[in-house]
Amino acid sequence: MTSPPPARKLPETARTRHRRLREQGSLDRDALDAVLAAGFLCHVGVMVDGTLLVVPTVYGSDGTTLYFHGSVASRSLAASPGASVCVTVTHVDGLVLARSVFEHGVNYRSAMVFGAPRPVTDPDEKLAGLRCLTEQATPGQWDYARRPSRKELAATALLALSLDEASVKIRTGPPDDGDGADAELGLWAGVLPLHTSRGPLEPDPALPAGIEPPSHLAGRATPPAPPR
Amino acid sequence: MTSPPPARKLPETARTRHRRLREQGSLDRDALDAVLAAGFLCHVGVMVDGTLLVVPTVYGSDGTTLYFHGSVASRSLAASPGASVCVTVTHVDGLVLARSVFEHGVNYRSAMVFGAPRPVTDPDEKLAGLRCLTEQATPGQWDYARRPSRKELAATALLALSLDEASVKIRTGPPDDGDGADAELGLWAGVLPLHTSRGPLEPDPALPAGIEPPSHLAGRATPPAPPR
Repeated sequence: MTSPPPARKLPETARTRHRRLREQGSLDRDALDAVLAAGFLCHVGVMVDGTLLVVPTVYGSDGTTLYFHGSVASRSLAASPGASVCVTVTHVDGLVLARSVFEHGVNYRSAMVFGAPRPVTDPDEKLAGLRCLTEQATPGQWDYARRPSRKELAATALLALSLDEASVKIRTGPPDDGDGADAELGLWAGVLPLHTSRGPLEPDPALPAGIEPPSHLAGRATPPAPPR
Repeated sequence: MTSPPPARKLPETARTRHRRLREQGSLDRDALDAVLAAGFLCHVGVMVDGTLLVVPTVYGSDGTTLYFHGSVASRSLAASPGASVCVTVTHVDGLVLARSVFEHGVNYRSAMVFGAPRPVTDPDEKLAGLRCLTEQATPGQWDYARRPSRKELAATALLALSLDEASVKIRTGPPDDGDGADAELGLWAGVLPLHTSRGPLEPDPALPAGIEPPSHLAGRATPPAPPR
């Protein structure tokens, strides 16, 4: 018998140490990969000209590096080479509806990545990063759409951030007040699940008749919700 | 005849001036209110002990003030009274699938609010702020669940941020490459809409039999998706 592979752990640093709600925190590398793989939109925190900005942008992760679009972050980086950013990815899975307002909360999965991003300048790496980012949001689209020209590549600000310093927080499950005094109140409690639905596709009005969506897009429409 | 009311404008400041993609930027106050009213999760950017953090948390807006939960931000505030934060709210409405990778993008609505948050300490304002926050995520829940006790109120970190300095960015519509050379490629282009779906409700396993969800929750389940 072989023993299971050891859990891959992220290092604990001053920035990734969970100081609150420790039970929800994790430095598990697979958990990080799973949270990052489940989305394509992140919020990047950067200092620009002395102002703290939190900017939404798209990203892709190849398991080692987070690539993200960033004209604002690029400007910050040009002004302050080596300055750290914080990139946060959050998925909301449900509203936790407890008996008491105090115990209300959110079921969520969130990752925070820290570090000094590196501007991607090599054309080959830029292509690979943009492919990662494009495929993360829309698998199959990189091989379908026209790829970036040399000029377009040069006009694209792409940043690379190592995943070496990161942490994950996850909350799942029902409310926490099911066994206390509030359980006697006779109130309903539970979770209202939330998830992202897709489709139906909206063709560009400029599209000539007869051009059908490719299978990798047509197949992504959301099936009808299950009956209640 | 009466003339229409003037558009309510937010002031342009160094932080709210749109330097990129100006066509998507807005200082319209009603647009800000609409973006904030459409969600309940924000990302707060704060400096804590010299580290930039972007923290997801829940918020409520009463049209004048943004209330948000924040133990991390409270800690930052205690260490650096008067320090500014950036609170960003983003709704993703669709993937913009163009003919070229370069023109790919996201349809979204995003608001950024800047300023120095104020810790809410007055019990009455704290109750009002928590009501705002609770009702924003789950309308009807404030009157249904047990409200916070004095002790719970004291244990809740609530921050208030004025909406006076804020900006909005919105992208809607089809891809932008419908009339260029790429339109000749014969590729499908359009938008894959994304939206948040709810339900069905998941009762707390600890719930005794016979307790049904109240109407304000039962009515929030998502209707089946329209046929494709």
